[in-house]
Amino acid sequence: MTISKAAYKAKLSDSIGNYEDVIQILTESSDFHDSSLRLLLVGSLRNRITSLRTSLRTIKSCKEKLDPSDLSKGLTSVINEICEELSKLIMDESEDVIRLIDDNILMYCNDHDKAFCNKLKGDLMRYRAEITTGSERSSNIKASVAFYEDSLQLARSCTEKYPIDPLYLGTILNYSILKCDLLNNPEGAITFINRALLAVKESNETLSPQSEQLIKILNDNISKWEQGSKNLFTSAFF
Amino acid sequence: MTISKAAYKAKLSDSIGNYEDVIQILTESSDFHDSSLRLLLVGSLRNRITSLRTSLRTIKSCKEKLDPSDLSKGLTSVINEICEELSKLIMDESEDVIRLIDDNILMYCNDHDKAFCNKLKGDLMRYRAEITTGSERSSNIKASVAFYEDSLQLARSCTEKYPIDPLYLGTILNYSILKCDLLNNPEGAITFINRALLAVKESNETLSPQSEQLIKILNDNISKWEQGSKNLFTSAFF
Repeated sequence: MTISKAAYKAKLSDSIGNYEDVIQILTESSDFHDSSLRLLLVGSLRNRITSLRTSLRTIKSCKEKLDPSDLSKGLTSVINEICEELSKLIMDESEDVIRLIDDNILMYCNDHDKAFCNKLKGDLMRYRAEITTGSERSSNIKASVAFYEDSLQLARSCTEKYPIDPLYLGTILNYSILKCDLLNNPEGAITFINRALLAVKESNETLSPQSEQLIKILNDNISKWEQGSKNLFTSAFF
Repeated sequence: MTISKAAYKAKLSDSIGNYEDVIQILTESSDFHDSSLRLLLVGSLRNRITSLRTSLRTIKSCKEKLDPSDLSKGLTSVINEICEELSKLIMDESEDVIRLIDDNILMYCNDHDKAFCNKLKGDLMRYRAEITTGSERSSNIKASVAFYEDSLQLARSCTEKYPIDPLYLGTILNYSILKCDLLNNPEGAITFINRALLAVKESNETLSPQSEQLIKILNDNISKWEQGSKNLFTSAFF
């Protein structure tokens, strides 16, 4: 594989979790040779925000474990303080990554790569919606919907991959989670998934292991949602 | 468990990898109630440095994978640059943690806890020795030896735990790695381990699962060293 110095540094920096350097290199260097590496790195930046989101959920869940003596000592305020810090990080870093995609990544993308980027932006806007309220939350949901819709449309246009494309199915999965969790519409989410699964069936194509796994998760989610369990965290990490 | 606000914040910060806050709280607050939590947090800070050391080894190992065309593009300099950054982080952070132990932790320690702290300091000095040269390396090795020796002496004085104490056996393990890898003395390391294993045998005590695991690693290391394999990375993380 031919790789430039900057791309190599970004790759190594990513492997040791030095995301500041990854962002800097992606912003400053156009000399990547290999475009798939760029997308891999942006995906990794999104994963970092996903792990902040996991931390936020972990800390929030600590609230339920506090007993009355903890409450009197003000431990709730400690939790709230950390939650605020994590929320701020999620807001700031998601903004950085979205800006990076818009200013430094999309220009190198073919349609399928653009679908990937729009899915990432949809995911990030969904995370932002989860931690905001009122009109800010509404506009984050709206933006997430728009990015997921764009991603699906672009992925559908790649006719040699659609409808069994893992990227397409992953977008269906994450978008359906938004429909269920944030738009409060499990029935709509189920119908939406079923339509995608029907297209897969009708295509008669051989599935990759990744697509098979996604279809399993989609079916599992339908079962859970039909049983009324809404708090579902499985989503697609690519 | 009764816990102070500061201790609770440190615990949550540790759980989400916010080590700056952990260091700050351990430095500024004496209000921990629970001393074992203090040690847990310092151990976690050491683990963070251990993971920097793992990153450094990963990046160094990339050098061997470079082909001639990579070399001509100057990719070696990228690796060297990242290795320098990681080495600097290891040096800076180990210094911070050792200072924290000396100024803010030892004062609350009984002898067994002091043995734990000295083992940590021995580990950190060993990491520093690995990435320094000349007289700096020699003095880091010397300091590591002194800390491990202190730890063993303190652990031996806890007669109700010695010689099957996991902390004691973990110190034997890590100190033997220093003897083999940095003092270049595998025979000495083997003799040293065998003496500790003999004391375990003669004690006729029932072993905890942790001690049993350590004894297995110690025996594995002896086998590998007897076969002349020196590059052994298994060590005790507590």
